[in-house]
Amino acid sequence: MIGYHKPDAGDLAAFECILPGRVLTSGPMMDDYSHDEMTEYGRFPPDAVLLCETTDEVSRVLRYCDTHGIAVTPRGAGTGLCGGCVAIYGGVVLSTERMKKIFDVDTDNMTLTLEPGVLLMEIPDILEGTGLFYPPDPGEKSATIGGNVMTNAGGMRAVRYGVTRDYVLGAELVLADGSILTLGGKIAKNASGYSLIHLLIGSEGTLGVLTRLTVRLIPCPAENVSILVPFPDLQTSVQAVPFILKRGELTCVECMEKGVIEDAETYLGKPFPNKNADAFLLVRLDGPSREALDQSLANLTELLLSLGALDVLLADTEERKASVWDARGAFLEAINGSTPSMDECDVVVPRNRIASLIEKSARIGREYGLRIRSFGHAGDGNLHVYACKDDLPDDEWERRRSAVMDALYEEARLLGGQVSGEHGIGHAKAAYLRASADPKQMALMRGIKAAFDPNGILNPGKVLE
Amino acid sequence: MIGYHKPDAGDLAAFECILPGRVLTSGPMMDDYSHDEMTEYGRFPPDAVLLCETTDEVSRVLRYCDTHGIAVTPRGAGTGLCGGCVAIYGGVVLSTERMKKIFDVDTDNMTLTLEPGVLLMEIPDILEGTGLFYPPDPGEKSATIGGNVMTNAGGMRAVRYGVTRDYVLGAELVLADGSILTLGGKIAKNASGYSLIHLLIGSEGTLGVLTRLTVRLIPCPAENVSILVPFPDLQTSVQAVPFILKRGELTCVECMEKGVIEDAETYLGKPFPNKNADAFLLVRLDGPSREALDQSLANLTELLLSLGALDVLLADTEERKASVWDARGAFLEAINGSTPSMDECDVVVPRNRIASLIEKSARIGREYGLRIRSFGHAGDGNLHVYACKDDLPDDEWERRRSAVMDALYEEARLLGGQVSGEHGIGHAKAAYLRASADPKQMALMRGIKAAFDPNGILNPGKVLE
Repeated sequence: MIGYHKPDAGDLAAFECILPGRVLTSGPMMDDYSHDEMTEYGRFPPDAVLLCETTDEVSRVLRYCDTHGIAVTPRGAGTGLCGGCVAIYGGVVLSTERMKKIFDVDTDNMTLTLEPGVLLMEIPDILEGTGLFYPPDPGEKSATIGGNVMTNAGGMRAVRYGVTRDYVLGAELVLADGSILTLGGKIAKNASGYSLIHLLIGSEGTLGVLTRLTVRLIPCPAENVSILVPFPDLQTSVQAVPFILKRGELTCVECMEKGVIEDAETYLGKPFPNKNADAFLLVRLDGPSREALDQSLANLTELLLSLGALDVLLADTEERKASVWDARGAFLEAINGSTPSMDECDVVVPRNRIASLIEKSARIGREYGLRIRSFGHAGDGNLHVYACKDDLPDDEWERRRSAVMDALYEEARLLGGQVSGEHGIGHAKAAYLRASADPKQMALMRGIKAAFDPNGILNPGKVLE
Repeated sequence: MIGYHKPDAGDLAAFECILPGRVLTSGPMMDDYSHDEMTEYGRFPPDAVLLCETTDEVSRVLRYCDTHGIAVTPRGAGTGLCGGCVAIYGGVVLSTERMKKIFDVDTDNMTLTLEPGVLLMEIPDILEGTGLFYPPDPGEKSATIGGNVMTNAGGMRAVRYGVTRDYVLGAELVLADGSILTLGGKIAKNASGYSLIHLLIGSEGTLGVLTRLTVRLIPCPAENVSILVPFPDLQTSVQAVPFILKRGELTCVECMEKGVIEDAETYLGKPFPNKNADAFLLVRLDGPSREALDQSLANLTELLLSLGALDVLLADTEERKASVWDARGAFLEAINGSTPSMDECDVVVPRNRIASLIEKSARIGREYGLRIRSFGHAGDGNLHVYACKDDLPDDEWERRRSAVMDALYEEARLLGGQVSGEHGIGHAKAAYLRASADPKQMALMRGIKAAFDPNGILNPGKVLE
């Protein structure tokens, strides 16, 4: 770890010159910039927060910091879950939250060109009336699209539509030395040299700062329907998943247990439509017409019942859909609200091993005496496992938490999985990545980092360290 | 360009020790290994061809060559179109054509794990009876899947299903120093550090040698139907494309002119079902049932007629489908057969600019006095433009060919396009990539190359030079 120059009065004056009135060094906002959604991973107040509004400003800030050896932590809305956007070595937070311009909704080429600070929840309004939609659907709708790209965020609809990576066609980014690079464009295919865009996606701000994006849109499916499928237990429910995926194009396949549903009911103050089972699959189908969906549903219902489902409950009105999907959307906050502290893992395994992973998670929780909650994207093999502190004393919690996480990552590795399906690495999971990856893979990643950012100013301590 | 060590008798003996009986240095086969499908780009006989059969052999060969400074050109079936697999600096060709093991057809996780030498045309038989298929569909079915991955090959069905990149979940590769690396796995999502897999896809053998792949499969669509749509001219046909793409999920949208269809009739000795128009779109739809397809077809037909189509001809029997798709599949060879020499470009532009590109291609051909044939993936904005030598003398052909290609690439760049949609760069298009890319982009690519292959032994002269 090289030492970084701590910004002094002269540096702050230089930033103020680039960003008049948009350099924060104190005040009530500063605490917000010291952490992401997981305060459990520590608070790291930056020396300054720089609120950039243009590509040129980002370029000038980076050139200055590169020359002066100041650490730069790029940040969107700060909704991450592994400390990816916090300044663990101090220096400046470079926020792109004010970069929210929409350049172009191109209905001919079915693309959207925008700045990285636009929130995921703002995109449907931008596309209103075009007949097009942006399929990636990460749970946290107040995340920025730039943050989604930098973590290759996934979400509910990945079963059918894929993840953020699959929708990025073009990007403008600023490199550590301040140079501005444009990659790709409004093009559907590209075989023109190494895919720097795909290298950037998921690089968590360690290789460059995104300043503009062109993403692919697709035609809105005309109709959708959801079904809630109760099962006698979670094992039976997830064992059904490979079979239903083979039958056709499901949009979402989520799995959930009664316990987490009860947490969500408490959190939302609204009842879940059915609790007569220990486990549920929640499935969504998109289709060109109601008739087409009805046919698919009839086949799917028959199959689900043959695989041990207790019932198949149709959610075809907006109200019924909301009652199940709102509960699903609230799981993370509901668990968070049920315990004074928690830790989470976001491992991904082959789809047919998710039943094993859930069983082993429960066993690990019992073995170490921690309450475990899990739910997740059964259709992708991507499970979110939460360990809850409850009323444990701090030192005991820390000891058990650490042991449980070590055991969970090791189980995922043994099942052919990877450290993160969609949340990324940040600093909180860097040790787990290092433990699971080949040393040669880590060396190649460091070599790439050195080619992009020879002075190592960009988001130090993340992903690689 | 550093100098490479030319393999001497001692080196050949070392290779023979690693690959007994599988080191070729002379004989009638050697000419085949001196070029790919485009002999126009020159013949470069390697000093030896090494027929590897295992990962361990690839590793030992690379370690030896890295230590001794011998250039290594990885090669699959040699069906490329830009000289990517020819040894322009001599040294050895490392062929993976004999690496054809199928490790696993995993119907639960919908994955296929295999060696890189398996041919694209062999995959349907491997999947027979599973109800699953591998969607990428590049025109050249005798290509290897390893070659497809290394060029991020696209093909007909990319409109709906995406390109090769979208199906690679895991890979084993051997680095220049002989170390073996495993990346990804049977997992549907991954946010675990820089995506080295996506960097490798499309890197044309300059960063490592693939020795094993895990690709994603999807359920076979139950039904498909094709339509041949005559238009009064090519402009009208391609202008209709953005409108029909917005209506729903078409699988293929190809555009073609009468001239190239006549070339195909001559080449195949079979009549095309309809020639009463100057231009055609060929469209395929996949669907869950014949009823669903009929509904989509009715809507699409109405829309096409409103956009200037002269008719909509249904190809719903295997025989009718074959008559149109066989013609489409023969275009490249038909054009090749119509002229003693040709050159081609594979540019990709925004879909709504393909009409401009076609118009400009024709104008450039007239301006320089070269016969131009073009056809392509209208649904992806990816046009294949062929310049034909016909009876021009060699020096005049060379002069006009070069001027036409310069003009075509410049037009594509001005239209917001890229050098290659799916064929890659090899050595033949490296100068065009350099001319269109930002120097900083090229510098980053060289930095990545140095991190993977510090001695520069892997496929020298390709992509970057």
